[in-house]
Amino acid sequence: MTEDAPPKTPPILQTPRNTLQRLSRRASYDRAVIHAILDDGYVAVISALVEGAVRAQPIYYWRVGDELFVHGSRHNALFKALMDGQEACITVAHLDGLVLARSAFHHSMNYRSVVIYAHAREVTAAAERTAVLKQSVERLAAGRWGQIRKPSEPELRGTMVLGFAISEASAKARSGPPVDDPDDYGLPVWAGVVPCKLAFGEGEEDTNAQPPA
Amino acid sequence: MTEDAPPKTPPILQTPRNTLQRLSRRASYDRAVIHAILDDGYVAVISALVEGAVRAQPIYYWRVGDELFVHGSRHNALFKALMDGQEACITVAHLDGLVLARSAFHHSMNYRSVVIYAHAREVTAAAERTAVLKQSVERLAAGRWGQIRKPSEPELRGTMVLGFAISEASAKARSGPPVDDPDDYGLPVWAGVVPCKLAFGEGEEDTNAQPPA
Repeated sequence: MTEDAPPKTPPILQTPRNTLQRLSRRASYDRAVIHAILDDGYVAVISALVEGAVRAQPIYYWRVGDELFVHGSRHNALFKALMDGQEACITVAHLDGLVLARSAFHHSMNYRSVVIYAHAREVTAAAERTAVLKQSVERLAAGRWGQIRKPSEPELRGTMVLGFAISEASAKARSGPPVDDPDDYGLPVWAGVVPCKLAFGEGEEDTNAQPPA
Repeated sequence: MTEDAPPKTPPILQTPRNTLQRLSRRASYDRAVIHAILDDGYVAVISALVEGAVRAQPIYYWRVGDELFVHGSRHNALFKALMDGQEACITVAHLDGLVLARSAFHHSMNYRSVVIYAHAREVTAAAERTAVLKQSVERLAAGRWGQIRKPSEPELRGTMVLGFAISEASAKARSGPPVDDPDDYGLPVWAGVVPCKLAFGEGEEDTNAQPPA
């Protein structure tokens, strides 16, 4: 890819499979909405058929443009299945709050989630691989790539970088207070939302001068 | 189930499929470890074959004894597939920290995760259903079940409660500082862990007197 190539912008494809049937008012097929949810997280779950059974694995991911990337060992059984052509179903979900209603039935959660169906492509070209791996570090701390030791040739050989088009994708979200039945609003019980989020603490510096035994 | 029946304690089955091949030092098959990770979260991802393709869905879950439970609409396509006999692969993952190493290659995450393979059973007996649904609310706020309106008959008819044996299960976790190559410890870059956790804020009371328009 050259610097001045136009950005790839495949449409978000709305297929029968990624069109939400249940609670469809909570769904979105807007690229900006989907990207924002993805950029707000670190761990996806990749599901695929491995040796005839459905397997799923939590994994670190990051987004560059219209693709979601993961990396890992070449010996990973899930990666091998994806390279053999198995389709991935990728989910990212953020919990935003517990919704405590006045009735058991209307208890709920506030959340934002994305589901993507895609086949993996391996990123093999050296320049693209470096650019994509750089992003995996830079999103953790801007400028960090310039400070750390870059991957060696043996490290690169053992690492597989996989990209997934964010195209057959959908977002689903709920926000706001509980929605109870009209007759229940008078019940003498606290109702509302207990908000939550992934919160980061102060960095804990590693003062070791050598690898732990 | 009667009150004085002995607790069910199926062993955690270590099968070829749930025995971790990669980084097996991070794995555990201990029931207490697995239960503790499950009890520390709210959202699982259930993956299964639906109409021939792998699908995954984030969902609220809770644990009672040696089973993990979820509930939802009878019209949920994933639930239908599970009731038709498709096996579920259930993952729960908690991110505990970003591990910033001195080399790109050794960047990592601190996490705790569980993967369970299981077939669903529908909870149909009225007494067990009520007990299990009670737990779904009580874990959010102890004593709450006694304060809210209980499910009506129509609500119960539309709700499916599914249980999954926590048996063919495994836990995987990483903790602690980065582990860099010996030669990299002298590099002039901050290394360590940025801890994170799901943090809850003050409850936001719903002051509506009727459902939002």
